Amino acid sequence: MKNKFRVVIVGGVAAGPKVASKVIRLCPDAEVTVIEKGKLLSYAGCGLPYYVSGVVKDQKELMATPVGTVRDSIFFQHVKNVRVLNQTEAIQIDREQKRVQIHDLVQNQRSWLEYDKLVLCTGATPVIPPIPGTDLENVFTLQGVHDAEGIRAALAENKARDVVIVGGGLIGVEITEALVQHGCRVTIVEMMPQILRILDLDMARLVEKHMESHGVKVLTHTRLEAIEGNGVVSAVQTSAGRFAADMVVLAIGVRPNTTLAQVAGLDIGTSGGIKVTDRMQSSDPDIYAAGDCVESTDLMTGKGCFVPLGSTANKQGRVAAINLCGGEDHFPGVLGSTVCKVFDYCVARTGLGESAAKDHGYDTATILAPAPDKAHFMPEARLLILKLIADRKSRRLLGVQAVGPGAGDKRVDVVAMALTSGWTVDQLAHADLCYAPPYAPAMDNILTAANVMRNKLDGYMEGISAENVHTMLEQKLDFTFLDVRSPGEHEQVRLPGSILIPLGALRRRLGELPKDKEVITFCKISLRGYEAALILKAAGFKKVRVMDGGVVTWPYEKLVS
Amino acid sequence: MKNKFRVVIVGGVAAGPKVASKVIRLCPDAEVTVIEKGKLLSYAGCGLPYYVSGVVKDQKELMATPVGTVRDSIFFQHVKNVRVLNQTEAIQIDREQKRVQIHDLVQNQRSWLEYDKLVLCTGATPVIPPIPGTDLENVFTLQGVHDAEGIRAALAENKARDVVIVGGGLIGVEITEALVQHGCRVTIVEMMPQILRILDLDMARLVEKHMESHGVKVLTHTRLEAIEGNGVVSAVQTSAGRFAADMVVLAIGVRPNTTLAQVAGLDIGTSGGIKVTDRMQSSDPDIYAAGDCVESTDLMTGKGCFVPLGSTANKQGRVAAINLCGGEDHFPGVLGSTVCKVFDYCVARTGLGESAAKDHGYDTATILAPAPDKAHFMPEARLLILKLIADRKSRRLLGVQAVGPGAGDKRVDVVAMALTSGWTVDQLAHADLCYAPPYAPAMDNILTAANVMRNKLDGYMEGISAENVHTMLEQKLDFTFLDVRSPGEHEQVRLPGSILIPLGALRRRLGELPKDKEVITFCKISLRGYEAALILKAAGFKKVRVMDGGVVTWPYEKLVS
Repeated sequence: MKNKFRVVIVGGVAAGPKVASKVIRLCPDAEVTVIEKGKLLSYAGCGLPYYVSGVVKDQKELMATPVGTVRDSIFFQHVKNVRVLNQTEAIQIDREQKRVQIHDLVQNQRSWLEYDKLVLCTGATPVIPPIPGTDLENVFTLQGVHDAEGIRAALAENKARDVVIVGGGLIGVEITEALVQHGCRVTIVEMMPQILRILDLDMARLVEKHMESHGVKVLTHTRLEAIEGNGVVSAVQTSAGRFAADMVVLAIGVRPNTTLAQVAGLDIGTSGGIKVTDRMQSSDPDIYAAGDCVESTDLMTGKGCFVPLGSTANKQGRVAAINLCGGEDHFPGVLGSTVCKVFDYCVARTGLGESAAKDHGYDTATILAPAPDKAHFMPEARLLILKLIADRKSRRLLGVQAVGPGAGDKRVDVVAMALTSGWTVDQLAHADLCYAPPYAPAMDNILTAANVMRNKLDGYMEGISAENVHTMLEQKLDFTFLDVRSPGEHEQVRLPGSILIPLGALRRRLGELPKDKEVITFCKISLRGYEAALILKAAGFKKVRVMDGGVVTWPYEKLVS
Repeated sequence: MKNKFRVVIVGGVAAGPKVASKVIRLCPDAEVTVIEKGKLLSYAGCGLPYYVSGVVKDQKELMATPVGTVRDSIFFQHVKNVRVLNQTEAIQIDREQKRVQIHDLVQNQRSWLEYDKLVLCTGATPVIPPIPGTDLENVFTLQGVHDAEGIRAALAENKARDVVIVGGGLIGVEITEALVQHGCRVTIVEMMPQILRILDLDMARLVEKHMESHGVKVLTHTRLEAIEGNGVVSAVQTSAGRFAADMVVLAIGVRPNTTLAQVAGLDIGTSGGIKVTDRMQSSDPDIYAAGDCVESTDLMTGKGCFVPLGSTANKQGRVAAINLCGGEDHFPGVLGSTVCKVFDYCVARTGLGESAAKDHGYDTATILAPAPDKAHFMPEARLLILKLIADRKSRRLLGVQAVGPGAGDKRVDVVAMALTSGWTVDQLAHADLCYAPPYAPAMDNILTAANVMRNKLDGYMEGISAENVHTMLEQKLDFTFLDVRSPGEHEQVRLPGSILIPLGALRRRLGELPKDKEVITFCKISLRGYEAALILKAAGFKKVRVMDGGVVTWPYEKLVS
């Protein structure tokens, strides 16, 4: 009798179960074994913040199929014909003899498992900062279900009034919302000048302001120095002072689990993940790898990058399975498409940000396009602020970022498609997207953003960032800061140092403005600001610029009546 | 003194105002005149159903900018420096002398207006069927604000209990929802075998069922023969009988307004719209045209098509303005991307449908992919049913259709981008789309749909439509109709003629099924159905097919406990 085709998969959370399921579908006779260190299998780690918040009631929901079947060992055996060894650790790989040594953590026994093909789906582990106190009670990371259970227990016992989140990345921000919903006073401690480094500084600032409006204290430029407490955490010491804390969540990032691969002599990429081909093959052709433990290729730069996401893990797992079964599939790489919910804001981006684009040598142009995400007369229309990044010379689109209550995920997905195809902003402006008042404005936000960029690239509009205007105001430079909104809008909220001439009155009141002085125009979103600038330029004003984004994206103090 | 550059625009609703605004931005010294037959300017015609429903409270909102300024003649003069002649009709074009004869409908005076460039934005007009009674009171179309006002007045006076909508296209469906919200009993009379011909029959059927669940009577294959009444409408006579009606809305389609162009000798396209280049230039280089009156190019077939939409009108208007001012821009064409809201369902599509693809000679493959539109454990996740259409040979994506409460517009926009770039389904499966539980499943619906299609194209899955299974059942053919859901699901709702073996028990109960008889498997969405088929095939069953879509897309009778 012919030997069965033996596939051993290390890791049973995201990529691993995907590989197992797909292998069995392609090769029903294969002998597939999944080795998982933990107790639980195939759970949606990305759902943990929603389990902490209570939106997801039962942890079983995170481990269930859409119809409610829990994906445990029995499920894998009966439904998938996959053997699962959980609470079992893979200790070492013997590449010569093609076998893995495993350690049964319950029986405390070691044994060898032979493979024809091995797949490493070992995931990533939260980074613990090398400071005192990380082992105190009520100090958590958010890696697994046990962390979420710990946080929930502390919340249930009312032991978490003051919470410090260390790190303002995706996980830090998502768990913040969950904790605020429980009534915690949350402080985010972030070492860098901004939270959410997936965004440019100007866009991140808008998110920080939004979090602060929900009572969150956001401390940027702040380094965690120690966690203090007597058995249980009671405070944190930071470069900005000492803060009371009865819970601390460490969310400074994750690191790919590559020890097994490294010890076996497999190549590791510059970003720290296991190096794989686009067939998800490691430097040993019989060993594949997928998910949070591998290095991906950045489609914008062609370089290696570490972007651990559940969506990518699933796609890579499928590719690995097809190839190891003798098929042919290729994972092209990632754009860094990301979305996260911050209270009622959708925050998303794809491609290169402004600073990353500059770092890669692009002659970068950016625009801000704030607008309602649906026909403005629909009551459910919400503000969506888009930032587009493009290359001046080639007019190629480089990236997009979205912040606001409007549907940013939808527009970022559209740009992700454009980036993959190497589109210019001109091509994007003509995309045939769906339109009806409950879903989009007649000119979809992303098309408007593309047109604003074209106006800039074509020289019709010269922009200036709010940050630069703010600096000019602080330096008391001599320029006209011209608000062209209506008197009613101006009365509600004003920018410091601005004067008002409504757009409709501008043509007949041109004489009030000195022609030799620079004029910086703005309105609510800077469409009228743009029209005002064109009127001024046609009237012979020498230097006219439009403030990018307008009042809604001004991140500094506003004067309110 | 040099003569001013004179631009005359005929039509002031959608494309016309866009052309005017853009021309003034590009050429601030131009003399721009807009001629509009009606009283009102620049209103959002697509918003009329929402004004009828009451979602939009005041008709002024439909004519206002996002910050609430009403776009009337004074607005255009003061803000835009554009002269508007409303209640004025363009009578004829004198191409020799480059002038338009206009008729002031208020003063009843005729005069000539000279132009350097003329732009026709004459829009489209609802088709009135050539039957008796269309002039009775309470018989409406839905072209302008006056129609919406008429309908609202009848509703306010409680004069519209029984309403017949003639035509189940986009406008018919949108106005149906508005009227049901007012408590009307609505009947849709549609001549064709289905409503919403933007969809394939199977997808349209799901929408019809949804409308019926909201109390709407949908009569397909039914021809309107007469509208009856004594001054006021009281009934309609159709091929399916006579129905009481105290209001009738005629929504059988619109026809481009091309008389002005035709009389002037401009070329008209095969689809009936004014023929234009991709610069929006008519056959006379000094006359441009944009919006609902022109023929567009179908990007999928390269042929002329008539797809009147506010979004397209805006884009074409911008292109016309740039070119007539001496710039260079090109409108590539349309995919027919469309979305509409049907109660809580989002209905959308882009590209070619199954039948259109077959008509164009493609060897068409289709799949149905029903799934939650967000991580299934999020309470706000909603069902989204996607149908993907692809070419078997080239594996090129041809189109997508979406029906259900889930966010279909987002997925259809993604596919619109893929179609424009000529992607294969394999490329689509690897797209890097945003993922977080509140926005998408880890494998976005569109990626799952692409993978289901790949499974089909690669021969792993042989599908059969619900329609064909239904026919086989009616013909009492001998096959095993195998439900592999859980006993709980089966008890709640069953398909006629099916037997149950849950997927988890299938491997050990294979002996219960005759191997020589065809097996057609299914589950809720047909993922487990697919896995069951693979198990059966591996076990030596000769003929195994999976029913596309599963229980949720079965449009026939179900057995409910």
